[in-house]
Amino acid sequence: MSKTKDLGSSKKPDRIRSSTLRPETLGRLDTIDTRAKPGFDGSKSDGAKLLTKRGERLAGLQELLYAGGRSGDTRSVLLVLQGMDTSGKGGIVRHVMGMVDPQGVSHASFGKPTDEELEHDFLWRIKKKLPDPGQIGVFDRSHYEDVLVVRVHDLVPMPVWQKRYEEINAFERELVDAGTTVVKAMLHISPDAQRERLAKRLDRPDKYWKFNPADIDERAYWSGYQEAYQAMLEETDTDVAPWHVVPADRKWYARLAITELVIDALEAMDLGWPDPDFDVEHEKKRLAES
Amino acid sequence: MSKTKDLGSSKKPDRIRSSTLRPETLGRLDTIDTRAKPGFDGSKSDGAKLLTKRGERLAGLQELLYAGGRSGDTRSVLLVLQGMDTSGKGGIVRHVMGMVDPQGVSHASFGKPTDEELEHDFLWRIKKKLPDPGQIGVFDRSHYEDVLVVRVHDLVPMPVWQKRYEEINAFERELVDAGTTVVKAMLHISPDAQRERLAKRLDRPDKYWKFNPADIDERAYWSGYQEAYQAMLEETDTDVAPWHVVPADRKWYARLAITELVIDALEAMDLGWPDPDFDVEHEKKRLAES
Repeated sequence: MSKTKDLGSSKKPDRIRSSTLRPETLGRLDTIDTRAKPGFDGSKSDGAKLLTKRGERLAGLQELLYAGGRSGDTRSVLLVLQGMDTSGKGGIVRHVMGMVDPQGVSHASFGKPTDEELEHDFLWRIKKKLPDPGQIGVFDRSHYEDVLVVRVHDLVPMPVWQKRYEEINAFERELVDAGTTVVKAMLHISPDAQRERLAKRLDRPDKYWKFNPADIDERAYWSGYQEAYQAMLEETDTDVAPWHVVPADRKWYARLAITELVIDALEAMDLGWPDPDFDVEHEKKRLAES
Repeated sequence: MSKTKDLGSSKKPDRIRSSTLRPETLGRLDTIDTRAKPGFDGSKSDGAKLLTKRGERLAGLQELLYAGGRSGDTRSVLLVLQGMDTSGKGGIVRHVMGMVDPQGVSHASFGKPTDEELEHDFLWRIKKKLPDPGQIGVFDRSHYEDVLVVRVHDLVPMPVWQKRYEEINAFERELVDAGTTVVKAMLHISPDAQRERLAKRLDRPDKYWKFNPADIDERAYWSGYQEAYQAMLEETDTDVAPWHVVPADRKWYARLAITELVIDALEAMDLGWPDPDFDVEHEKKRLAES
């Protein structure tokens, strides 16, 4: 343990615990500093170094989960990412889930529903994309859009979306009962951070494709969205599927925090290498003769 | 260009071209050295270095494909991986597709069909997993199982599997016509290499889960499988969806070769950043005012 390297700083970059990021710890959205780094004292470069290291841990745990899935363990993990446009959801998929074996990750992003999807219950399209046993599923947006954009723009009558909080809680409880650990994270940015990020997309021809003029129109509804997010946190922050709020003006912090949330979830599953369901010595002999 | 480093060798590791790996170039399966490195003169460490570099190229092209998919381009890529047990299909997914953004990759593996799948046409489960526009789909095994294991073990009557070659060709032509570039690769290993790899799985408790006693039983059918693979190459190596044979006893070579096959496919698509469908200056102004 080469402590000498850390003489300059008495505070070592610590692990970000899931509990640090719970709404009950951080308080209401409008009181949270979106540039904060809860649970982490280090700099950006400390964060990058730690991310690489923790990425290895994440990959190791993911392999255990995957191995279990191939051996009859029906458990899985679902990471639900929500946040305003440009909050960094795609970057999480790329830079966090990009650290693990693609075979063990299923990714789905939920945009504006298609006509077919609108003909069904709002959970219909969600249920089709749930992770298989042994998989980490990542939802870039999710069923929560149906109490966010839908609420802000009155896309369905209030009694309809109001009922959805309860429906979502029941749905997630079912998921958890069936063996899926649900990790919910809201990436929380400021309107100024969003303006900067949108401006970058307008500055580079290789980023134009990420820009949509409607993103600017949506900025007029910022406070409505914040209210909807706050209500979401209050209505659906359950014991079985708790929410986490990740201050996300610093992308590197958000990536590290999400990595830790998924690691926490996997560690809580008490994973191990599956026992062989065959006689190892016997199989070695058979193989040698084959 | 630090040429000095290469003084010891006049042959620089070259690019592996798709044409090098075509069955018409390499000849019949039983004449191919599974330890060969067609199109590449370098060592394992040269190969590893080149893979990292080419991985960046792959990731860059994949982002163009993805950007196009988000902007109305309906094209996609489907990488079909076939090969005997332990030939390294999973490692390709992990180490090759692991180099690109997970958002742009969809992965499916096709094991023994479920009862539900068996009630449908053999292409039914395949069609459900085709890549969306802008995606690279990777099939770890595929519809070709229905002319491989099925043929070797007489799982359906001969006239049924015999008809499938034509059905597959028609299916792939449809796919290509609809804008999917189909990259087909068979990972070709020797029975000895397979024995070694199976032995490794029996040597380490963290690898037991990858082992299945049936894998040893299947070794008795090696020559039947080789015949079935040879027939597959002869019957389904079409102009629109050509086959490639990748000698795969050296895993590092196989990974590099597949990387090059996918790069070749993407380069042939002539991808570019999508033009903006909005007035950039106007949007900048709107954003500043928002």
